[in-house]
Amino acid sequence: MSLEEEVLRRIRPKDGTIRRLDEAVGQLQRSTGESISRSGLDLRTMLVGSVAKGTYVGEPDIDLFVLFPETVERKDLEKIGLRIGQEVLGGKTRYAEHPYTHGEIGGFEVDLVPCYAVPDASKIRSAVDRTPFHTKFVLSSLDATKREQVLLLKQFMKGVGVYGAEAKVQGFSGYLTELLIIKFGDMLSVLGAASGWRPGVVMDMDSFKKTGGSAPLTFWDPVDAKRNVSSALSLDQFCLFVHASREYLRERNERFYFPRKRPLLDLDIIEATFRNRGTSPFAVVLDRPDLVDDNLYPQVQRSVLGLRKLLEMNDFQVLDMKYSVGKDIRTVFELFSTELPPSRLHQGPPACTENADEFVGKWRKSGLGQPFMIDGKWMVYVKREHRDPATLVLAKGKEAALGNDLRDLKGLKCYSGRDVYKTANRRAFTLLLDRREAWRV
Amino acid sequence: MSLEEEVLRRIRPKDGTIRRLDEAVGQLQRSTGESISRSGLDLRTMLVGSVAKGTYVGEPDIDLFVLFPETVERKDLEKIGLRIGQEVLGGKTRYAEHPYTHGEIGGFEVDLVPCYAVPDASKIRSAVDRTPFHTKFVLSSLDATKREQVLLLKQFMKGVGVYGAEAKVQGFSGYLTELLIIKFGDMLSVLGAASGWRPGVVMDMDSFKKTGGSAPLTFWDPVDAKRNVSSALSLDQFCLFVHASREYLRERNERFYFPRKRPLLDLDIIEATFRNRGTSPFAVVLDRPDLVDDNLYPQVQRSVLGLRKLLEMNDFQVLDMKYSVGKDIRTVFELFSTELPPSRLHQGPPACTENADEFVGKWRKSGLGQPFMIDGKWMVYVKREHRDPATLVLAKGKEAALGNDLRDLKGLKCYSGRDVYKTANRRAFTLLLDRREAWRV
Repeated sequence: MSLEEEVLRRIRPKDGTIRRLDEAVGQLQRSTGESISRSGLDLRTMLVGSVAKGTYVGEPDIDLFVLFPETVERKDLEKIGLRIGQEVLGGKTRYAEHPYTHGEIGGFEVDLVPCYAVPDASKIRSAVDRTPFHTKFVLSSLDATKREQVLLLKQFMKGVGVYGAEAKVQGFSGYLTELLIIKFGDMLSVLGAASGWRPGVVMDMDSFKKTGGSAPLTFWDPVDAKRNVSSALSLDQFCLFVHASREYLRERNERFYFPRKRPLLDLDIIEATFRNRGTSPFAVVLDRPDLVDDNLYPQVQRSVLGLRKLLEMNDFQVLDMKYSVGKDIRTVFELFSTELPPSRLHQGPPACTENADEFVGKWRKSGLGQPFMIDGKWMVYVKREHRDPATLVLAKGKEAALGNDLRDLKGLKCYSGRDVYKTANRRAFTLLLDRREAWRV
Repeated sequence: MSLEEEVLRRIRPKDGTIRRLDEAVGQLQRSTGESISRSGLDLRTMLVGSVAKGTYVGEPDIDLFVLFPETVERKDLEKIGLRIGQEVLGGKTRYAEHPYTHGEIGGFEVDLVPCYAVPDASKIRSAVDRTPFHTKFVLSSLDATKREQVLLLKQFMKGVGVYGAEAKVQGFSGYLTELLIIKFGDMLSVLGAASGWRPGVVMDMDSFKKTGGSAPLTFWDPVDAKRNVSSALSLDQFCLFVHASREYLRERNERFYFPRKRPLLDLDIIEATFRNRGTSPFAVVLDRPDLVDDNLYPQVQRSVLGLRKLLEMNDFQVLDMKYSVGKDIRTVFELFSTELPPSRLHQGPPACTENADEFVGKWRKSGLGQPFMIDGKWMVYVKREHRDPATLVLAKGKEAALGNDLRDLKGLKCYSGRDVYKTANRRAFTLLLDRREAWRV
């Protein structure tokens, strides 16, 4: 039996799961139908997502859409949609472009989502209106064999760490995975093709161009040719998938699908690594705001970049960084040094501008040496305000470009020197220092 | 008496000088005439340069040109020109675009230069052919009053350190100074105009544009409109002149014309300065090749930039640098640090290229940690080869972009740490650390 067949045997939905799922879906559709009847409106429902397409791996979420005619006003769609959701699931309201209901039935997570029934996907009024078209397209394009290939590809992507279009992952969406199988035929053909991709590839169902895209990967949506299905995919995740494809085809191994758990590095190993490299760790801790992941992660990513910029603007050379979101948000930076000289070379205005005289007059008195010209600009050595990154971030952190809900730097703590080697920082340090690919752990 | 009048009184040629000069010029012209007669050719001579124009400050050089008809072949011009030079001066042959003779008469340095008599300056066959046209233009444009203004402006430029188009100075040529007086009328008007200049000003005798030039200052030659008289002027020297003009007009002072001698800094002051700033000095010494200044300085400048580049490519952060040419060539660098960590972050190829696998395979075994991706490129921490600049320059100096005659790094010595504080380095360190303008010394 080939490795892929063995993997398929492990990931194919179990009979028990299928039965439980059928029951849950049946119950969901019945309750929703009854609730719709009570509303007096004539609304269709449609099962969408991986359950509808039979392309789920592991325990799936169930997505049921309630389709409203376009004559219904948006605020009514929202109100009625939530009322139905409340009656059926009694669950929590969640917010995408418009609100929907999240709950649980028969042990499965369920999203009950109101959307507009539009004539075609280029006429959508909100992103969710497109989903029914995706489901129809995939259902009409995947046979049973290809469906299994989707399972394989999804498991591979999960294993190497690139599955999921959400902000936390910035990888491949389920729909994109399905399109790749439809386009290339099977999982190995997708990996074979991907082995030759470079950032900027552009494709749709019928054509392929090696370069020219503004995103790492552009896959024009077959149901809406102006939309790139792959817009959430980051450059590094694209490259990681290409790299994983090449490595897998060279030496197939089940660890690509089922990686071992990556152990946290011991603190003494972390410390020894920095000592051997002669680099300096610096950690910033923030309270975790109460937000869903899709809202939280973009803010964390923005804040980490903002802090990096603040450090760099103040002459700290950032070699690498990683963040870890758990009970709090921990960002670790690997710096060239956490101790800067007591002076800095301060660049002034171009020598022939109005401000030049003022600059020269000011610093002639208070600089660490006289102002001088380099390449037509005034320069002067001045006393450095922040010689270590902790003082800098504590004093100027709020001036960094931070995510909206992190802007007040609630719970801010900074660690450098020996203080950085704390158990709570192990996860972030492991992300930073254990760079083995998932399949090599 | 105004400051300018007082200065003029000091710099106006003394009667004794004028008399000695007249005698020397007379003798030079007679001997040259006789030598020409012996050659059997019908050649004119022309006194050119600051002596001809009466615009010299201090002890002038005498420039006598021998004008050949264009029918004479270049090699004959050179041969006959040198023979005349030999007969008249018995001096040394020097080389510009073609050879000429340098010697001494009556205590004055003399250049006897053969050139072609061309119908106008746009038809020149060699740069020296233009000089007679410059002399004629200036003689016809300067009256006695303006001639004195030229003296003032030249003395001002000498004092602030921007006089001379030679590579060592990269400042204003005598001819450019004269054109500025002709254009703006007098010395104070030149400074007044210069106070408002920014790099990129473009002018000729009749027009002025504030921006658009590719050089810091473009002054189109009135005798050859395609030539920028100011092409040798560096950005920093241009800016220094603008700065000096502004400062002088704000508070006139004879020290702009006659700066005090700048004392060499004591070694303990030099050491204390670096200690206060927390920066690290590094000195490179090379033997001085036997070349004339106009050949030597461009090579030194190129080499200093080449060494800077080598240091920067190897992660040494160069804040500032200066060189001093004396018995040897001493370059001092002010570095952020002279001690780098034992590792460096090595950038590899983009993740999706053919070379990527090789890079990853190699460094997976020998890196200080696993290779990882940043922005689609492979990176890896590797052992650093050169942790201090001396080891680097001794090992890799010859790979730097160096001047032709410095390429073998003859006499190379490197100093850092306490060894750098040597008497022989005081001049270069003074240039680096005493950045007071000449008029503030």
